[in-house]
Amino acid sequence: MPASPIRKLVPFADKSKQKGIKVYHLNIGQPDIETPEVALKAIHNFQQKVIEYSHSAGIISYRRKLAAYYEKIGLPVSPDEIIVTCGASEAILFAMQTTMDPGDEIIIPEPFYANYNGFAINSGVVVKPIPSRIEDGFALPPISEFEKAITPRTKAIMICNPNNPTGYLYSREELEVLREIALKYDLYLFADEVYREFCYDGKKHFSVMQLEGLEQHAILIDSVSKRYSECGVRIGCMISRNKDVIATAMKFAQARLSPPTLGQVVAEASLDTPQDYFDKVLNEYLARRNTVVSAINKMPGAFCPNPQGAFYVVARLPIDNSDKFCQWLLESFEYKGATVMLAPATGFYATPGKGTDEVRISYVLNVEDLTRSMECLAEALKVYPGRTL
Amino acid sequence: MPASPIRKLVPFADKSKQKGIKVYHLNIGQPDIETPEVALKAIHNFQQKVIEYSHSAGIISYRRKLAAYYEKIGLPVSPDEIIVTCGASEAILFAMQTTMDPGDEIIIPEPFYANYNGFAINSGVVVKPIPSRIEDGFALPPISEFEKAITPRTKAIMICNPNNPTGYLYSREELEVLREIALKYDLYLFADEVYREFCYDGKKHFSVMQLEGLEQHAILIDSVSKRYSECGVRIGCMISRNKDVIATAMKFAQARLSPPTLGQVVAEASLDTPQDYFDKVLNEYLARRNTVVSAINKMPGAFCPNPQGAFYVVARLPIDNSDKFCQWLLESFEYKGATVMLAPATGFYATPGKGTDEVRISYVLNVEDLTRSMECLAEALKVYPGRTL
Repeated sequence: MPASPIRKLVPFADKSKQKGIKVYHLNIGQPDIETPEVALKAIHNFQQKVIEYSHSAGIISYRRKLAAYYEKIGLPVSPDEIIVTCGASEAILFAMQTTMDPGDEIIIPEPFYANYNGFAINSGVVVKPIPSRIEDGFALPPISEFEKAITPRTKAIMICNPNNPTGYLYSREELEVLREIALKYDLYLFADEVYREFCYDGKKHFSVMQLEGLEQHAILIDSVSKRYSECGVRIGCMISRNKDVIATAMKFAQARLSPPTLGQVVAEASLDTPQDYFDKVLNEYLARRNTVVSAINKMPGAFCPNPQGAFYVVARLPIDNSDKFCQWLLESFEYKGATVMLAPATGFYATPGKGTDEVRISYVLNVEDLTRSMECLAEALKVYPGRTL
Repeated sequence: MPASPIRKLVPFADKSKQKGIKVYHLNIGQPDIETPEVALKAIHNFQQKVIEYSHSAGIISYRRKLAAYYEKIGLPVSPDEIIVTCGASEAILFAMQTTMDPGDEIIIPEPFYANYNGFAINSGVVVKPIPSRIEDGFALPPISEFEKAITPRTKAIMICNPNNPTGYLYSREELEVLREIALKYDLYLFADEVYREFCYDGKKHFSVMQLEGLEQHAILIDSVSKRYSECGVRIGCMISRNKDVIATAMKFAQARLSPPTLGQVVAEASLDTPQDYFDKVLNEYLARRNTVVSAINKMPGAFCPNPQGAFYVVARLPIDNSDKFCQWLLESFEYKGATVMLAPATGFYATPGKGTDEVRISYVLNVEDLTRSMECLAEALKVYPGRTL
């Protein structure tokens, strides 16, 4: 099992804080946005006298309301096509373990969310990365790259849309390309859509569940963590219209008895979150993205695409080694009493040697703090001993 | 992945209820006992504005308080020897995946908690069952049985103490035997002690963490689900004094980000549960055990040991096939408008053909309902077509 590349710098950050240095955390996906009022109220009003197991697939009233939510956004699913999980993490594990045997292969465009690799190892599954490029803003790789990677053991393709770590939002056309490949080679198509609500510049999200004729192949991974800024409730879900997939996943679900009951109560209440909550949050993130992207593109030798989803960017910096640089930021640098903690992009690539001049930045701080963080980063790039400019 | 043997009868129970028949649920481990007041209050008083991820190993204030609880009951552990998990389920998965490679073997006395097998399959690990016998009340099998089962691939022994499904409470002497075997063959010893608080007849629980010289081998699996009747919070933990075990388990913990935050808040508050809560609960369970054990032993041809822990018994009944019998109870039987749902013991044996004349009964109903359930069972045994008496 590999260590989390995002969390391995934590001891250095702790030391930096002990020295009295303010550390701006741009390394994690924990937003500072408040959880909706309706969700917090549901906790305070919790009336049950016994905190019981729920149904292994999730509380039925929650699954019904969740199905209505998907219906409303154009993805009609029924409650029995949904298995509520302990975060998207468990949904990914269930999806992999349900559809693949040890030694089977899953194709994922890289860079990709580092824990996919951990879940694959956990499931005995082999990740076959194919390259997406910063020059293209990390768009979907061409079909030829997928076809080069397909072997008799390939069972699935996985995307994250909008993407963590790149922020890239796949278009309907790109999804249609994936549909063709999935059908031609009879592969499952996993789509992690936990950032679905975070799309900018007027772009609409297109879901794997909207692909026609892919009912037996599409598996949707979702979570309430980011949508309602309630990462700690650990409530996600796995959705498929393929009855065999659901029946097998249910065996894994039953073995672990039930997803968290309190989290489900909160998640169910969250479905009543008013639209203006999302409008505000979206405006806030948009301002943050603009702050980060324009600041980085002003730094000499740096480049940052302008992604249209999620709350991450992967930027190219004029540095020799992103692991060294991110550690150096914490160990040996400060500017006006502060430094920044970034995630080295190497952790998001399965191919050794890739991502050494790239970092992932999560824009989960307010615009003022982000502006200061970017100043800090600009200064750091001027004095970092391993700068390549 | 095998289906849960406990849950596969659910559709038959549903049909029975649709016919208007009252079904007494003696098949599951969901107690009817109320969650402590302090725990429920903690939910109502939850003050955070953002429900955030916790530390991957669990909230530090909770781990500190948990360490103090273990210290108090005679198992001194430090907070960094504890990883908080999503129920004992996740703790078992972490323990298996941390200490074993695919193909490695774990010895478990049977009958055993059915999901151990699911978790083993999930981890690529092979369960080697060794027999415990109803005639001995399901005491620890003799050393010779362990030694017969040990191969070069054996990496661990696992017990559940007090035991689910048998209710058997292992003595200090039996633990010492396990200690010798673990040291002699260099095996991990996993102890699932989630029923630690439920010991009857003045018996004291003896923990795997109290075995001297076993620091590098002992792994404790625990959960608050049964202790505080809060199965739905999904909070357990894995404890080891072996630093390499904890370091590796932390990689699995980091991949899934964090255990449920709300559940941890509840679990932390639960540590202040007053002693009289436990006294009352224990008296209640004791009365229930006595009700069930004495009723079964009065049924012609039936036999039930008098176990000293947990809230389960495995009873031998004069029946041809426990799967058929349990299904028949739901499909074709009623007495005074009611029937009982039991768990066929076959699901708790890994060896095919075992447990066909045994059932597991969870005494999670009040004495009055249990008395009616036992009347129902006694009548059923008189008319069941496959009775062997």
